[in-house]
Amino acid sequence: MAKSRKAKPLILVVNDDGITSHGIRALVEVVRTIGEVVVVAPDSPQSGMGHAITIGNTLRLDKTDIFKGLDAYECSGTPADCVKLAKHIVLKDRTPDLVVSGINHGSNSSISVLYSGTMSAAIEAAIEGMPAIGFSLCDYKPNAEIDHCKEFVKKIVQQVLKTPLSRGVALNVNIPAKTNKKIKGIKICRQARAKWQENFEQRLDPHGRRYFWMNGSFINFDKGEDTDEWALTNNYISVVPCAFDLTAHHSIPILNHEWNIQI
Amino acid sequence: MAKSRKAKPLILVVNDDGITSHGIRALVEVVRTIGEVVVVAPDSPQSGMGHAITIGNTLRLDKTDIFKGLDAYECSGTPADCVKLAKHIVLKDRTPDLVVSGINHGSNSSISVLYSGTMSAAIEAAIEGMPAIGFSLCDYKPNAEIDHCKEFVKKIVQQVLKTPLSRGVALNVNIPAKTNKKIKGIKICRQARAKWQENFEQRLDPHGRRYFWMNGSFINFDKGEDTDEWALTNNYISVVPCAFDLTAHHSIPILNHEWNIQI
Repeated sequence: MAKSRKAKPLILVVNDDGITSHGIRALVEVVRTIGEVVVVAPDSPQSGMGHAITIGNTLRLDKTDIFKGLDAYECSGTPADCVKLAKHIVLKDRTPDLVVSGINHGSNSSISVLYSGTMSAAIEAAIEGMPAIGFSLCDYKPNAEIDHCKEFVKKIVQQVLKTPLSRGVALNVNIPAKTNKKIKGIKICRQARAKWQENFEQRLDPHGRRYFWMNGSFINFDKGEDTDEWALTNNYISVVPCAFDLTAHHSIPILNHEWNIQI
Repeated sequence: MAKSRKAKPLILVVNDDGITSHGIRALVEVVRTIGEVVVVAPDSPQSGMGHAITIGNTLRLDKTDIFKGLDAYECSGTPADCVKLAKHIVLKDRTPDLVVSGINHGSNSSISVLYSGTMSAAIEAAIEGMPAIGFSLCDYKPNAEIDHCKEFVKKIVQQVLKTPLSRGVALNVNIPAKTNKKIKGIKICRQARAKWQENFEQRLDPHGRRYFWMNGSFINFDKGEDTDEWALTNNYISVVPCAFDLTAHHSIPILNHEWNIQI
């Protein structure tokens, strides 16, 4: 047993679109050729869940046989919950050599990393000291063509297993949608400065009470050629190394200089 | 009208514990002495929601009269949703001079900033270019003594209105719980390197099916005296300026050097 564990890396697979999505199936298909795979994924779609965790409610975790021959569990919680339950309940004393999240249906580049359940799972793993990669396909359709991603996912996973990430770093990998144009390569990038411009659509329910649908369009303020947005627009795969220290370090001396509060 | 708007700053109040919590009442009480106040807060507790947004479901936004004489709305969504709805539906063409979130019942120091709904609202405001402060009291009890916070909240709000924050920066302010010891002052800090060590309690429901409660204890790995944890342990108010660029900039040259993937 010990020998086979050494020979084959242990890979935990999570996602945010739910355990039945096409994206997680494609991801499992790739990583099961590389290592021993355990899946813990939400039992329902959890897009846009950010780094939510379940603290005021109970959690379910049930074994499922939807991945033939694999140890797989569906969880009632968020993507971050899945990582926590995988660590403490499913894997117990075993630590994954790699955590992979996705493949998300839709881009998680730039500011979307904050809202992304896919990336929150990867970042949760990084907090626990496990190397982690979130994969997203820049195509929101549930039936998006995803097969072209497999080759890139495989190469990136193999690279990370060969040259370990710095502790506390999770990769945010976005792959251009399938078109006739060939993907040119991989760019290591920084997160572009951008935001979503919301557009709330107001409707009336059958009882005459108003409700809203949130919708939005993406606005990129960042003209840099070292960003994930630039890479994706130019048909490269973007790879942003992410950390979980939100401190705006440059602001500390400014505040120390300007503030003058007597307590 | 234009004159009175100039004279009194427009302050948007949000939170994550819900619009009826003691914390938001204390916060409203303070800021209504300083500016014109608009409240948009969740209609139910949203602790631990991280930066979740509502994209697969509808949103409600209804006027409420629970704050006498104030324009206040309760929202079915997350704290980040509240900021987005406030901007686009409630305030329309008016931009708040300051967004304040809280006062949260419980610490949001260190790694908790990632899971915090209070701070996600503040960071969402920062993404929109609005100065923002999240206030938290290091006492989880819903009936925690909160009156001692008011003086500090007032001073910090006044300071931020006087010396504006850098664009894209939100402050994470944590205030020690009420004890007999006097709070010593305010420290501008960095986020401590720490994590939650989960402990899942397994139970059986009345049908014999297992479920879990997430619980955890906080572990601080960081011995630095410039962290929020150090400040709070030593009975100071901690102020961490936060940004929303997750890029691990130090990792970019490492990955560029080590990776060698042919596409």
